[in-house]
Amino acid sequence: MIFDHIGIAVKNIEVAKKMYEKILQTTTYFEETLESQKVKVAFFKTGQDSKIELLEGISLDSPISKFIEKKGEGIHHMAFLVKDIYADIERMKKEGFVPLQDAPRIGAANKLVFFFHPKSTGGSLIELCQTQN
Amino acid sequence: MIFDHIGIAVKNIEVAKKMYEKILQTTTYFEETLESQKVKVAFFKTGQDSKIELLEGISLDSPISKFIEKKGEGIHHMAFLVKDIYADIERMKKEGFVPLQDAPRIGAANKLVFFFHPKSTGGSLIELCQTQN
Repeated sequence: MIFDHIGIAVKNIEVAKKMYEKILQTTTYFEETLESQKVKVAFFKTGQDSKIELLEGISLDSPISKFIEKKGEGIHHMAFLVKDIYADIERMKKEGFVPLQDAPRIGAANKLVFFFHPKSTGGSLIELCQTQN
Repeated sequence: MIFDHIGIAVKNIEVAKKMYEKILQTTTYFEETLESQKVKVAFFKTGQDSKIELLEGISLDSPISKFIEKKGEGIHHMAFLVKDIYADIERMKKEGFVPLQDAPRIGAANKLVFFFHPKSTGGSLIELCQTQN
């Protein structure tokens, strides 16, 4: 699995974008509102494979809004790019990692995404993602 | 700045290594005990530039032990590789980001490392690191 991105929960994506532009000295290359996931996202490229994803909840029941209410702004998850997400989900389930959903969903940039419960992965929320052709 | 690694605070690095070997399907390529930083570290390569760093505190006053006591195990920081750490520290200080130390320290693999206060960077602990020749 290749590291793909870090997801960062932010209260206001416009404010956070300006802050990360200063830190990373680059601008976002992709932005999207994902109604199904109740988030606005913005991506910065930070290397050959790696990106920073900013996520702002667009409703109070968004997982991002709930995360910020409980833990404050900050790093929310880390994501790994896989070639066959269904195979990796099965592999990880067999290893005892606990899925947070029944099946992959459509995430940012039309990728398939799937999360595992942080209680089963040492406290870190881990996402698998796969590019769709 | 190029994304370099995610640092993950763990209670027991041997247990965590076995878990991440299962997740990432690879083994560590570098391990070290850093007495000065009061941590044991272990690195997994996860792409062209990117790594996962596991950190276990080796004393109760280790920043990692304190982090786990307060927040539990999980993602601790994200690190970016820079070419001139002194220049980037000055640049970021001028932008208003608050340093957590006076000068770079020697971190894992003899890199120079420097941290900024998460209260000044939207809740995420950010490390700059530079390879020394």
